[in-house]
Amino acid sequence: MSVLRLGYVHINVTNLAEARDHYVNTLGMDVIHEDDGTAYLKSWDEADHHSVVLHEGGVGLVKLGYKVADDQSLADIEKRAQAFGATVDRMSKGDNASVGDGLRITLPSDHTLELYSEIEYVGTATGLWNPDPWPRGGLRGIGVPRLDHTLITTEDPALLERFFEDVLDFRAAERLVGGPDNDDLVASWMFCGEQPHDIAFVKGANGKLHHFAYHMPDWSALLHASDVMSMHDVPIDFGPARHGVTRGETVYFFDPSGNRNEVFSGGYRTGKDWRTITWTMDQAARGINYTHREIDQQFLSVVT
Amino acid sequence: MSVLRLGYVHINVTNLAEARDHYVNTLGMDVIHEDDGTAYLKSWDEADHHSVVLHEGGVGLVKLGYKVADDQSLADIEKRAQAFGATVDRMSKGDNASVGDGLRITLPSDHTLELYSEIEYVGTATGLWNPDPWPRGGLRGIGVPRLDHTLITTEDPALLERFFEDVLDFRAAERLVGGPDNDDLVASWMFCGEQPHDIAFVKGANGKLHHFAYHMPDWSALLHASDVMSMHDVPIDFGPARHGVTRGETVYFFDPSGNRNEVFSGGYRTGKDWRTITWTMDQAARGINYTHREIDQQFLSVVT
Amino acid sequence: MSVLRLGYVHINVTNLAEARDHYVNTLGMDVIHEDDGTAYLKSWDEADHHSVVLHEGGVGLVKLGYKVADDQSLADIEKRAQAFGATVDRMSKGDNASVGDGLRITLPSDHTLELYSEIEYVGTATGLWNPDPWPRGGLRGIGVPRLDHTLITTEDPALLERFFEDVLDFRAAERLVGGPDNDDLVASWMFCGEQPHDIAFVKGANGKLHHFAYHMPDWSALLHASDVMSMHDVPIDFGPARHGVTRGETVYFFDPSGNRNEVFSGGYRTGKDWRTITWTMDQAARGINYTHREIDQQFLSVVT
Amino acid sequence: MSVLRLGYVHINVTNLAEARDHYVNTLGMDVIHEDDGTAYLKSWDEADHHSVVLHEGGVGLVKLGYKVADDQSLADIEKRAQAFGATVDRMSKGDNASVGDGLRITLPSDHTLELYSEIEYVGTATGLWNPDPWPRGGLRGIGVPRLDHTLITTEDPALLERFFEDVLDFRAAERLVGGPDNDDLVASWMFCGEQPHDIAFVKGANGKLHHFAYHMPDWSALLHASDVMSMHDVPIDFGPARHGVTRGETVYFFDPSGNRNEVFSGGYRTGKDWRTITWTMDQAARGINYTHREIDQQFLSVVT
Repeated sequence: MSVLRLGYVHINVTNLAEARDHYVNTLGMDVIHEDDGTAYLKSWDEADHHSVVLHEGGVGLVKLGYKVADDQSLADIEKRAQAFGATVDRMSKGDNASVGDGLRITLPSDHTLELYSEIEYVGTATGLWNPDPWPRGGLRGIGVPRLDHTLITTEDPALLERFFEDVLDFRAAERLVGGPDNDDLVASWMFCGEQPHDIAFVKGANGKLHHFAYHMPDWSALLHASDVMSMHDVPIDFGPARHGVTRGETVYFFDPSGNRNEVFSGGYRTGKDWRTITWTMDQAARGINYTHREIDQQFLSVVT
Repeated sequence: MSVLRLGYVHINVTNLAEARDHYVNTLGMDVIHEDDGTAYLKSWDEADHHSVVLHEGGVGLVKLGYKVADDQSLADIEKRAQAFGATVDRMSKGDNASVGDGLRITLPSDHTLELYSEIEYVGTATGLWNPDPWPRGGLRGIGVPRLDHTLITTEDPALLERFFEDVLDFRAAERLVGGPDNDDLVASWMFCGEQPHDIAFVKGANGKLHHFAYHMPDWSALLHASDVMSMHDVPIDFGPARHGVTRGETVYFFDPSGNRNEVFSGGYRTGKDWRTITWTMDQAARGINYTHREIDQQFLSVVT
Repeated sequence: MSVLRLGYVHINVTNLAEARDHYVNTLGMDVIHEDDGTAYLKSWDEADHHSVVLHEGGVGLVKLGYKVADDQSLADIEKRAQAFGATVDRMSKGDNASVGDGLRITLPSDHTLELYSEIEYVGTATGLWNPDPWPRGGLRGIGVPRLDHTLITTEDPALLERFFEDVLDFRAAERLVGGPDNDDLVASWMFCGEQPHDIAFVKGANGKLHHFAYHMPDWSALLHASDVMSMHDVPIDFGPARHGVTRGETVYFFDPSGNRNEVFSGGYRTGKDWRTITWTMDQAARGINYTHREIDQQFLSVVT
Repeated sequence: MSVLRLGYVHINVTNLAEARDHYVNTLGMDVIHEDDGTAYLKSWDEADHHSVVLHEGGVGLVKLGYKVADDQSLADIEKRAQAFGATVDRMSKGDNASVGDGLRITLPSDHTLELYSEIEYVGTATGLWNPDPWPRGGLRGIGVPRLDHTLITTEDPALLERFFEDVLDFRAAERLVGGPDNDDLVASWMFCGEQPHDIAFVKGANGKLHHFAYHMPDWSALLHASDVMSMHDVPIDFGPARHGVTRGETVYFFDPSGNRNEVFSGGYRTGKDWRTITWTMDQAARGINYTHREIDQQFLSVVT
């Protein structure tokens, strides 16, 4: 498994100042770099230069970046992606601020996926010498520690799952199918390392973002996060609640442009010998929102 | 302040076996006594004979019982209730299983309120000698420790508040009024000791129950409670969420007959020098559901 | 029960600047008033003018203040204290900054206890109109919400318990005695309202302070508090741990002068019909430190 | 990285019945298989046949088993181990109940390390179809979900670290060295996937076990675990506390034979691009026990 993790998410925002306020003051990220309508942010426990990039103008996903282990991995992936029939371009150092050479793939779902192994090392807020468990000065707002995963929509989940398996060596931690005797794939949650998911996709329009998520320490941190959301007038989609899928705990909410965010905690440890869990459509509501066993229409319909 | 606490709630349930299963296996209460269509239950950390009584037939509140300190308190309250103009009857030992003499008052809101100072002592599950913090054998289902408060509806909140102040020496911890310049009372949360509330009422039909609540240790216990609700197919009204009013944490849900229950944690310490907090109608949604800042229609409309 | 709560603790500190830093930056209290070697502090969820007063010079307890409901209570207590044989003086408005007339009693244990019903109202950090559950700007350091209780030492616990029962109308929530057949009182935890304890005492030298405690929201808040203690180099006595007595959760630590503090969460609801729990000396270690079932010598021997 | 995780720990216990009671009733593991003085146990969230094996007779570590991805990994590791100069034997299917062919390596620290890719699949308690987040029937005792890591002692930490790097492709998440200008290695915490550590070692006698650890959901689960330990008279070494190293939360305790166990929660996500954190000996106490910043002699000296 040569893909390490979701490294960055680029999104469009209708108003950069408002978006900056949300990601900096509500979520607690730091602005590392800014140029001409674009802001590069990282969370306190992230070492790389940026994990969320805001582009002024519009709304929705621009592209995803996944970090890979080394250049050899890039070469291997390039070959496999071409063999799969995907559109693959070489990405040059500097195409993205502080990011090295890499690949730019158009997924079968029409999303742009960038892969890279080099990015400027900035370091976490607690450092590499005798560190504290969190920054001494305290955290700003929710204080998200790091980016975790993203959920995108696709017309053909089975095709996209095969792409991530064959080209990127991901595996499905959990899958949602039509029923016990109907293996039509509705959604898949896939991992590249040991998390429950590093990417997930659900049947829907190509090229769209359902949400991207930050990893939180635990359930108690979600109450604090929810309080901060209320103080900052952040619209909550659903949660705090338990997920059936991944067994995690969650709050879904929206940035000022309408892009959906999640704070997520918990989950289990996967790995190469993981056996995929299957959900059937009759239990889908329990799978998504284990607590309430119902899904609101907004959660199903709003993507950006 | 001579009223000690909400001692018991009698409710009608459409099917006693189903209700018994809910209160015993989902909530974790113990059946202490049963006769002829009636089940008397208590929670593990309650010492008195019962706190919830289920009556087969119909749905909704039968009556509330508040425990007072002593017989002198009963006599004092009787006089004040009569002076207030309420209907007051003497209740005899044995009218309720294991409960002593007392008073039966018809509140201005048409609810029946019983007051008593004696009830058979059964003891908590952890006992009075070198106790553990919770029962060694573990807890069943949610494992509610004790009854906490109730919320009822009334056509005239201001009248009912005055009754609880003048006759029962309660005080308002928090009040919801029309607006900064409109002191029409919409709801009041009142305490008799040091809790945020021992009873609350909101404008609505006379004689109805909105919910009764159990006190839980903390926010983590609410996640466990929610998981148990999901496993037992319990319909959740809303939560886990933060309350603005009382600052507590909450999950609202329904018993099989449709009576609303709550598990509640947190809150602050009140007392005789407490200054009442005021909420205005424009902030009512934030007051009820601080997390989501919206109230679903079901929460407003369903009473039993 | 006319005593409302522990209102204030006056302590000596060897260095006011260091103590101020501890109570303000580590614990998160605010300095409300200062004069000539004395600092008056309150916590964010306290409404009265001050709860902790630091006096430069030496170490140890100066005096305790308990707030009572009204002047009539003061008069009643004065009579009962005199009948008990205690030394009682009238305290005048202004003897303590912002505190009204009251009583000053020398306890049988040689501690000075002040009682008062009036103190300047400052208000909590969240206010009385549509409040947030905690201050929007966040909390400083541990962010203690309020003072809770104190534990003092006495040569004659049985005598002191009788004083608090007869004169102040406290009751024992829990007691530690010699053994099943030895009712020599070693310690008593007493309440005036509905908490597990508002004061406690244990056999030892007269006039000494074991600790005073702040009330915290829950167990998760104790981990955060412990982290802050580590960052601020605060010596921890013991904890995070569970108490057997009171069933609460705790961390004990020291201020820079060596006065012991506690952050405490949890516990149960008491009241006038509470039946006292009894611990026997063979289970004392489990009673104090339920988690570890052993007590270090420092905890037993260090008082100020 | 072809090693997946710590798969099993074999330990000697002085009395099998007592040990069985500890691992089954206190920790909550299930006995999957027993023969002739040996008990094979697994935790509820583990899918493989066993993770802890108890052997009657004596005390201390017998051997460790790490699961690898496939047979090719075994062959590769065999070659690298031989090149390193370690003693490597082939292990046959059936040498361990339900475990396939593999390798048996004598580490430079004289510990026996087994590597295998096949072991009978038993499945978790929640299964692969529409699972609940935890077993409906509830958990027994502490209810540990899964084995996590182990800490062993070695005369030459630098040599053992090089072995795990060169032969098994582990990386150091954190290291403890003599000082800023003294890079003598005292301890190393190494991972094979994305956890903070899958194995750790500290300078000491060869062949010894310091502890093995279970992964827990969060800090709240550690309070519950501590309560269960108290109820079951389990000796606690230290905790609940925060680790500096790994940023996790911990309780250390002993099984009836004196083998040290840990329940561990929290931590961060590592990976192939992780930069090693360094602790210096002057901060070692804070690194081990961030909360108390001191280490008791028992923690340093007791190994089995």
